[in-house]
This record gives sequence, C-alpha cells and structure tokens, in this order.
Amino acid sequence: MERRAFVRGAGLAGVLAAGIAPAVHAQANIRWRLASSFPKSLDTIHGAADTLAKAVGEMSGGRFQITVAAPGEIVPAFGVDDAVSNGTVEMAHTAPYYFVGKDETFAFGTAVPFGLNMRQNMAWKMDGNGMKLMNEFYASRNLVAFVGGDTGAQMGGFWRREIKSLADLKGQKMRIGGFGGRIMERIGAVPQMIPGGEIYQALERGTIDAAEWVGPYDDEKLGLQRVAPFYAYPGFWEGGAQLEFWVNKRAYDGLSAENKAILETAATHAATVMTARYDHRNPAALKKLVAGGTRLFRFPKDVMDAAFKASQEVYAEISGKNPAFKKVHDDYMAFRRDANLWFRFSEASFDDFMQQQRL
Amino acid sequence: MERRAFVRGAGLAGVLAAGIAPAVHAQANIRWRLASSFPKSLDTIHGAADTLAKAVGEMSGGRFQITVAAPGEIVPAFGVDDAVSNGTVEMAHTAPYYFVGKDETFAFGTAVPFGLNMRQNMAWKMDGNGMKLMNEFYASRNLVAFVGGDTGAQMGGFWRREIKSLADLKGQKMRIGGFGGRIMERIGAVPQMIPGGEIYQALERGTIDAAEWVGPYDDEKLGLQRVAPFYAYPGFWEGGAQLEFWVNKRAYDGLSAENKAILETAATHAATVMTARYDHRNPAALKKLVAGGTRLFRFPKDVMDAAFKASQEVYAEISGKNPAFKKVHDDYMAFRRDANLWFRFSEASFDDFMQQQRL
Repeated sequence: MERRAFVRGAGLAGVLAAGIAPAVHAQANIRWRLASSFPKSLDTIHGAADTLAKAVGEMSGGRFQITVAAPGEIVPAFGVDDAVSNGTVEMAHTAPYYFVGKDETFAFGTAVPFGLNMRQNMAWKMDGNGMKLMNEFYASRNLVAFVGGDTGAQMGGFWRREIKSLADLKGQKMRIGGFGGRIMERIGAVPQMIPGGEIYQALERGTIDAAEWVGPYDDEKLGLQRVAPFYAYPGFWEGGAQLEFWVNKRAYDGLSAENKAILETAATHAATVMTARYDHRNPAALKKLVAGGTRLFRFPKDVMDAAFKASQEVYAEISGKNPAFKKVHDDYMAFRRDANLWFRFSEASFDDFMQQQRL
Repeated sequence: MERRAFVRGAGLAGVLAAGIAPAVHAQANIRWRLASSFPKSLDTIHGAADTLAKAVGEMSGGRFQITVAAPGEIVPAFGVDDAVSNGTVEMAHTAPYYFVGKDETFAFGTAVPFGLNMRQNMAWKMDGNGMKLMNEFYASRNLVAFVGGDTGAQMGGFWRREIKSLADLKGQKMRIGGFGGRIMERIGAVPQMIPGGEIYQALERGTIDAAEWVGPYDDEKLGLQRVAPFYAYPGFWEGGAQLEFWVNKRAYDGLSAENKAILETAATHAATVMTARYDHRNPAALKKLVAGGTRLFRFPKDVMDAAFKASQEVYAEISGKNPAFKKVHDDYMAFRRDANLWFRFSEASFDDFMQQQRL
C-alpha cells in the first residue's frame, strides 16, 4: 500500500531553511509477510529474519513492517520458493540449495561440496558476480535475492563409529541431502533424507549410522552426541553455507527507492549478525560437547580425495546438461581457484600459527 | 536540525485504513560531516565511508545526509578522534589503534599482534562483549562506535632481502607503527614511522629495509615491489584489522530512533561490503604481483615464536599499568582462546584441503 504524505528533507535546503516542509511521496503502512524455512529452535538462523524485520521496522519508523512466519504457519519450509514466486508471501528466508531438485543452479546460492568458504562466498556475492548471476537465474521465478547469513564451515556430522578410511564409509547410512548426498553416494555411503525432528530416534535405533546437521551450536541442542559419539570434520559439502532473503519481484518493484535501500541494507546487517553469532557461540558449544565425551575425528585423506574427485565429476556432468548451472559454475569456480590461492598465504598461515599456540 | 513534519505509518492502522495520514515527528534535513583517516587512493577503505553515506542518504529518503571528507579537508588523518570528541565533525571513519599513544586500549578497536582474525573480530564485537566494552571505553571521550570494516589478515610487508631467521631480522629498519613496531623492536628490528607517501623513496634509497602497508590490493598500487621484491606473510601484528565509525555522542543522542537504526545498520552494511571487496580483489592483485616477480616468503618459525612471546610480555606489562586496557584485554583474550580452538577444526581443515588442490 502506498500513501501520499507530506514530508521531505532532501535537495531543498533553501525551502527547508525557510522553515517550510514541502510535500513528498512517502510509502506508509507497508505490511509484508516473510516465510522462514527454519524453525525457531534454530534460533541463530531463524533469528536472522527477526533481525532483518526489526531493522526494517526501526529504520522506516514503523512505516514498513515485516512479520516473520515459522515453517508451516503460512507455507511449509520447502514451499517458500513457490510462495514468494506467486506472491502468497512477499518474502522468504531460506537456503537456496533446498531447491536443487527443481534446478541444480540453486545450489550456488548456498553451498556446493568443496565450494567457497564464508568470506569467499561473501566476496563472490557482494563484490564479484555472485548476486548478479544468481539474480539473473532467479528472475524467471519472480525472485529478487539478497544475502541472508552464512553458518561458516559446517561439521561433518555425528557417527556411531569413527571413519578411518574410505573402506569404512562403504554402506554407511547417512542422513544428508542435496549435493552432499550425491557425493556421499558416489564414494560408497548411502544417503538418507530424514526430517530434523526424526534424526535422533533413527540414529539411536541404528536405522542410520550418521547424521549431519549444522555445527556445534545447533548440533548440541539436537542431542545426537548421546547416540553417536563420533563428530566428524570438516563438513566438506558445506564449507560455508549461505542463506538468502528472497523477495517477490512485483512486491520489490513496488517499493520506493527508500524502502528498497532499507531492505537491502537490513539484509546485509542481518547476514553479518548471523555469522557473528555462530562464530561467537560455536566455540563454547564445542567445548561443551567435548567435555561431555564427544570424540572429534577428521575425515581421512582418502575420503576427502575421493569426495573431491566425485564433486568434479558431478559438476562436469551437470554443466553438460544445464546451461544455467554452467554459467554460474564457471564464474564461481574461477573465483574459487583465485581465492584459495590468496587465502593460503596470510590468512591461513596466521590462523595456523594461532591455532598451535597454548592460549 | 530537527523538523516537525506530517507523515506517519506505524501503529495507527485504523487511521491509515481510513485514508487519513496523521502527524508525526520526523527528522528532516540532518547534515553531517564525516572525517575519514584514509586517503581516497585507499579506495577500498575510504570507500567504506562512501558506502555508509550513500546507504544513509538512500534509506532516509535524503533526510539524513553525510558528507565524507578526506584527511586534511577538515581535520588531519590523526586528528579525527579529537574532532569527533569535541563536535568539529559529527563522525569519523578511522582505525582506533592510531590513537594508542593516548591510551593503549584503543588497539582492541582495530588489532593487536596475534589477535583475532576477521571473523573472530566480528564475532567478539557483534555478539560477544567487544563493541560494548569498547563503547564503555570510548564514552569518556564522547564517542559512540560502530563496526567499520576489516581488511582481513594483512601481509608482512615488502623487504629488500628475505628474512630466513630471527638473526636476519637484527637491525632491520622497518616502516611499522603502533604495537607491531613495539613487538618488532623487542625482537631486534628497528621500527620507523614514515607517512605512506614517503615509503617508496625511503625503501628505494635504503633508508629503510622493509615497509608494511596493508595487503596485495593496496600494496600493489604503492609499487613497493619494484624496490623491495620480497613479500612477507603473515602480518602477525594485524591478523584482522578492524576500522570503526565513530560518532559524536551528543550528535548521536540527538538522532531519532529511526535515524539511529539507519546509522547502525548502514555501518554494518559498509563494513561487510568493505571486507568483501578486499577478499574479492586481493587474489587478483597477488597474482599480478607474483607475475611481476615479487617473491613471497613466510616469516620463519623463530621470528613468529619470538614475536608471540614478546606480545605476551607487552600485554602483561600494559595490563599491570592500565586498568581500562586490562578489562578489554582479558575479555578479548578469553575469546581468542576459545575461538582458535573452534576454528582449527572445520574451518581450518576445510580451507587447508582446498588450498592444496589443483583448482
């Protein structure tokens, strides 16, 4: 809803200096609904939408308000793409890779196995071609996307036994979806899709052997460590998992320039706060897990090498069939190469030294 | 300047539904000046203030405008603290550690040797106690601070010859200031303060043996590689260098809640864009340097170990004399310990694997 109103500040210093407030077209009483793909129990992720909504409300002086809905309140977690496309809701907060079943290109909005880490993701999206390419892809679905937070490198899940070699992985039933599942399948594991709420029981009963979720802060709350004490790293299928805010294109186009700027800036703010929360809260959660008996193990080199090789094969196959995927893939992978060349020097050598100290 | 105006959206849905736009107190025609400590030639850093100003102007519909001044236009680069404190300008964009000569506590606003990396800095500031503690410290100087961007881990400067051991460092005259200089002095080097514009000539003439600046993107533009071909890493004195936006407290208190939110959100946005720019542009600059003959070398372990030990001594000495420093130090270092424990697992092992691949 738009309203004509009666205030203006910019560009009319002379008029204002004379004490006269001239007329302006300001939008008042914008009420939007945002459908989140994430339950409130994932407070860090779900909270990013709350952060955005709060910032938009405050910055607009209450003239632009967004209500955040949990999965199922308006649409299901995995129905948010259609809901935003067709305007059932104006916005969503989601992980684009949930929709790779419709088009694999969605994956680059979140993460692909052996993809970019958090900082590389943000660099590619915000200063490289990332958001531009993704928005070209989203345009046909009436979506306009903004950054929505990054979890950082995820962990490799809880396992009932330690994986010491590629042979150990053979036949292991693991709760893992999307591209990660496709890679796991190629190297011998058996990927399973199980909703978050059913993981604990499946792992306890031995219906599955392993399950990945996010990282220490979220994982610890699920309690999987009590039924599968081995905690793997790194989660190579999500070296930096990005969420995005999606906006219905018609709703977006109807916003004033002022409200467009408010929305975009609030998205960056919410994304940055979300990552800061993970990076601040994961350390304490990891300490708690380890103190409680969780045993960390690193995926062995033959697993990593086989998975990396499988990922390259998968990307080549999809690129041969899906031109939209190939277009984003080629740009993403060129930056992956350069970024890893740079990050191995100062960043990695500094971090490596610090991690070896008794602090 | 505040103005009474005539628009309102929030909280009065009933009135609005009737088509009547009620009165509201909105601030119009706020005009602020921001003094940057950074020359326009550092486009990535200087640009963060431009990003903030643009976002504030757009989000307020032009009712809140900030003009960015380069060093010397209003106040010198290192005079921005007093200028904001006493209200000569409403805002600054600076590196707090420029002011360690007045109080060492300022250092934690930017970086200390062997301190937090970029993500840890943001986690400490935005979800930990960081900004809260720094703002307690700044309050006596009438400053209110917000995040202002991070360069990432800086490089260790250009050297006329490669440093292969701690013995090689003895007597080397290096352009380096602040805490980094104090550490370098303790381990045998001779720190020098030379303005950015004079570094090239001093290095060419052999007046100094080495000079640190920022990272590949900025360093390459200075051209130091032509007179000192050895490029060291990591810049252990700046594992993640944070800038901040400083606001005069009285000016800040005079803002409406709406404009306070606009300012804070724009700061996070500008900070995030700045880091994304560095992370996206450093890789190409490093390739260019290496293609041009620059030779990278890693500071040897005995240099790193001696510098780390010296840093611990320096922090203990200052903590014994400066209670404000000790208060921030203890919180910062507790998080440094936990954060490095966590980051060594998924983040570091993922990055390490990726950096070893032929991509």
